[in-house]
Amino acid sequence: MSQRFRLLIEYDGRPYMGWQRQAHGPSVQEALERAILAITGEDVLVHGAGRTDTGVHALGMTAHVDIAKTITPFRLMEAMNARLRQAGERVAVLAADPAPEDFHARFSCIRRHYEYRLICRRAPPTWEQGLVWQRSKTPDLATMQEAAAHLIGHHDFTAFRSAHCQSPSAMRTLDQLDIEQQGNRFTFRISARSFLHHQIRFMVGALVLTGDGRYQPHHVRQALESGSLDGVRLNVPAHGLWFIQADYSDNSMR
Amino acid sequence: MSQRFRLLIEYDGRPYMGWQRQAHGPSVQEALERAILAITGEDVLVHGAGRTDTGVHALGMTAHVDIAKTITPFRLMEAMNARLRQAGERVAVLAADPAPEDFHARFSCIRRHYEYRLICRRAPPTWEQGLVWQRSKTPDLATMQEAAAHLIGHHDFTAFRSAHCQSPSAMRTLDQLDIEQQGNRFTFRISARSFLHHQIRFMVGALVLTGDGRYQPHHVRQALESGSLDGVRLNVPAHGLWFIQADYSDNSMR
Repeated sequence: MSQRFRLLIEYDGRPYMGWQRQAHGPSVQEALERAILAITGEDVLVHGAGRTDTGVHALGMTAHVDIAKTITPFRLMEAMNARLRQAGERVAVLAADPAPEDFHARFSCIRRHYEYRLICRRAPPTWEQGLVWQRSKTPDLATMQEAAAHLIGHHDFTAFRSAHCQSPSAMRTLDQLDIEQQGNRFTFRISARSFLHHQIRFMVGALVLTGDGRYQPHHVRQALESGSLDGVRLNVPAHGLWFIQADYSDNSMR
Repeated sequence: MSQRFRLLIEYDGRPYMGWQRQAHGPSVQEALERAILAITGEDVLVHGAGRTDTGVHALGMTAHVDIAKTITPFRLMEAMNARLRQAGERVAVLAADPAPEDFHARFSCIRRHYEYRLICRRAPPTWEQGLVWQRSKTPDLATMQEAAAHLIGHHDFTAFRSAHCQSPSAMRTLDQLDIEQQGNRFTFRISARSFLHHQIRFMVGALVLTGDGRYQPHHVRQALESGSLDGVRLNVPAHGLWFIQADYSDNSMR
């Protein structure tokens, strides 16, 4: 006799050891669960569309939670934001809606959209410290775009997964990998149903090294085929990564 | 026998009591002067194009400084950024160039460009806390634009200055006041040769109240004529304000 709620969540990943609850450090999931406990007295489990790593940010993470107490979505959102703010958390609830019982933030998700943000300059970041990856060298946009085209589609992404990746299969379908340059800023827009562990960061790393001239674009295709990046793997910093949006087949919300 | 340098500075205004050196708190000017002292042993004065208030940020503040020690602009920039980073400052030098003796960051400046950033939503900011003004109510864009048109040009801005403003004249020429809306975000782009104390924040406040329906656009014109906003003055928070750029007649740099 509980109600399922769908939540749209924004967070600054800097203070957190990622989305997932950890024994020895703060997490976004724990911040949300503590807020709900304070409001309802219920020890709930909050499920997210993506379990982002330490330092990764979110503009539009979707989550769901079941609550027994009678509360409107609006009151839940307001009370959660008041609690989160009071607790000094860098997490906010942008929207809350009733959800059907069979809605699952993780398993119902049909597409995940990420951005990776890079600024190329010698000076360190000031107001966006921990929000963007800064490096001195500027990679060539057209070369990166040529290399990125090889990654689109259904492939074995073994060369682009971390050693700790637990997925039984490395087959994934990459729907989008667009790169935009505005002055010294690059935004990588990346979408797929799901990703391997560190896949996005290894893909961006390979593209940046290609844009630097250390790889040729065809080496990215060879890496897919051979399952190896020949040891020259660059796992770009987590703090440049942003979870933008989760899509569901009924995408009325968000 | 010193060399004048022109510096392009970015800073996060959150930790600072504004640009100008203060007896009882950190300032951007002091951070820069300390960095130069550490590098050259010289106790210099750094002059900025604008003396921004506590909490105001800058993406492109121009400054100048005279240094006796022989050093290239590139080495000066690199050494300053290394020092600033080491000291935990949220200030960075984006560019450094030699400048002629008669170049003065403040007095040679012919136009100053600011942005004011507003986000309209119920949830508090997370990653942009202290970088944007957040409020629940969404003002009407067209109404604000109609009101803003009255402010463009040469006027007596007495109604839009703080009680502490020390300028002998309240006559100013406002060159630009454009407002852009993207979803729940508003950006006010404001340019003039110079501004009165708190003029931008009072102007944005009057526009937002007009967009809320509390004023009519013609009341903004009446405020210019009467020198009063009838006591309904809103000084919007400093932390939504960004110094974007300073123009000089020879604008080769920046």
